[in-house]
Amino acid sequence: MAFTAAVLGLGNIGRCVIRSLEQSPDATCVGVVRRPASVGTTPYDLRGVPDFPSFDDLLNSVERPDVVIMGLPSRLSPHAAAELLSRGFNTVDSFDIHDRVVEVVGALESHAEKGHAVSITAAGWDPGTDSVFRTIFEAMTPVGTTFTNFGRGRSMGHSAAVRSLDGVVDATAITIPMGGGNHSRHVFVVLEKGHTLEDVTKAIKADPYFAHDPLTVTQVKDTAALEMVADASHGVLMERVGASGSACNQHLSMEMRIDNPALTAQVLVSSARAAVRLCQQERYGCYSLIDIPPIMLLPGDRMELLGRLV
Amino acid sequence: MAFTAAVLGLGNIGRCVIRSLEQSPDATCVGVVRRPASVGTTPYDLRGVPDFPSFDDLLNSVERPDVVIMGLPSRLSPHAAAELLSRGFNTVDSFDIHDRVVEVVGALESHAEKGHAVSITAAGWDPGTDSVFRTIFEAMTPVGTTFTNFGRGRSMGHSAAVRSLDGVVDATAITIPMGGGNHSRHVFVVLEKGHTLEDVTKAIKADPYFAHDPLTVTQVKDTAALEMVADASHGVLMERVGASGSACNQHLSMEMRIDNPALTAQVLVSSARAAVRLCQQERYGCYSLIDIPPIMLLPGDRMELLGRLV
Repeated sequence: MAFTAAVLGLGNIGRCVIRSLEQSPDATCVGVVRRPASVGTTPYDLRGVPDFPSFDDLLNSVERPDVVIMGLPSRLSPHAAAELLSRGFNTVDSFDIHDRVVEVVGALESHAEKGHAVSITAAGWDPGTDSVFRTIFEAMTPVGTTFTNFGRGRSMGHSAAVRSLDGVVDATAITIPMGGGNHSRHVFVVLEKGHTLEDVTKAIKADPYFAHDPLTVTQVKDTAALEMVADASHGVLMERVGASGSACNQHLSMEMRIDNPALTAQVLVSSARAAVRLCQQERYGCYSLIDIPPIMLLPGDRMELLGRLV
Repeated sequence: MAFTAAVLGLGNIGRCVIRSLEQSPDATCVGVVRRPASVGTTPYDLRGVPDFPSFDDLLNSVERPDVVIMGLPSRLSPHAAAELLSRGFNTVDSFDIHDRVVEVVGALESHAEKGHAVSITAAGWDPGTDSVFRTIFEAMTPVGTTFTNFGRGRSMGHSAAVRSLDGVVDATAITIPMGGGNHSRHVFVVLEKGHTLEDVTKAIKADPYFAHDPLTVTQVKDTAALEMVADASHGVLMERVGASGSACNQHLSMEMRIDNPALTAQVLVSSARAAVRLCQQERYGCYSLIDIPPIMLLPGDRMELLGRLV
């Protein structure tokens, strides 16, 4: 099976999605939708892919894509996905607000069924592939506790939360694992004139994203200095100790050290392939990664994959 | 969904399956089939579960099970599963001969479709849950190499291969990881009178199971001494370094230190639950673990699981 994809958004994720599609033996990127003011600029990011100011402009110019890959911020993603699903387009997104996944699955499910389309949501690495590891670990050792330790790395969600505060020009939040699934946060901020580090630190500490974790806040002089603080490196150490039947002392762990947007984008592209397959099988609806047979994520013939991977 | 299971065989795996079923909130074990000469003996293994000399005797005495969990040696398992599937029983097995998985899936598929039943095969930890990790790792980093390093632990397959050789009364083979997916083997043997360690070492070295690996063979005086050499501990270190799109240096690993038969049995029980669900959805056929949505392995409601694990 070969498939075509359109990309919505040309931020960190959208750019990496274009590169992952280019590397996929079975995928073609038909176009990317970006901010109208940017269309036609910075062609080095586009790898020859045509860019458009809106999805309808894309549809007017290129073939209808088998799937739309969302490179939008999480808070905008469900609404945009719902509209596309209603119009019969398959979508994949890396929506990452854990507390809202159930609500989003429920909402997108009805739009997908109505549009005879497939949505795969929360398809990044956490939520996403980490969710699969947590599920399999629990199937292996039903009694036990899983700790997901993130970092050291830049948290997009925490950075955005600080950026939205009064008195903050720009910010980067680093997540530092403390063990047992607990984390401390180190925030670097560029302050607006007339605001003090003390006041902004108080405002960060009051934000629900930060309220329960040890916090360090450091002021840097400008965005250029901020960009030197952290690259896109990230990581996870997931640990579970538990029992299989009456056998305790089962130790399971998964560790990764990764380029964050590149991995998110790759999981989106692998999920896009699965979405197209599910749609071909008329299994319309909204899925998370733990709702999908893992083999659907990979290109190629089932029996060849079974022979190589099982 | 609650389900009932019968267990075929009361070796290491069958005994652990009974314990895992007992721990599962949604499972009931209706009976176990064991060697006729042993029926009624060693009740401490049975946890109150009735034992029978044949599957038909079991069917005559207890309710028809939703699924049959195979605790038979791999070489006997496909034939027994085929017969049960043709008769309309769902089966799960931990068939572990990697080279034959594709052939077995093909054979069991037709029996399952004929009997309107579901088979999940190769559902242990390798093949099995390791196959899922290999698949997800590849979906995260399509370009790269995965090494699966086994051990240190006793290999059931290698031990059985030595036991079948001329001049060997009993044997245990230990797998020792050397890195890069390579292993050395340390075999402990009890020799028959009139056979020398030198001859038996040559025969082991000539066996395809051992031909390519560094080998150490040590003679011990009897089976009691052999049993002191190795317990059921085993482990895996799976490593992948690769690229997501154009981003190289993505490092992924999974490590586990486990009770071998207890984990195999637990994966069988989790898979039994999935087999019953697939059958309820009339999705008859033969599946490996990478063909199954991970969420199907766990008890409970989908939305509750999504909220907790995604």
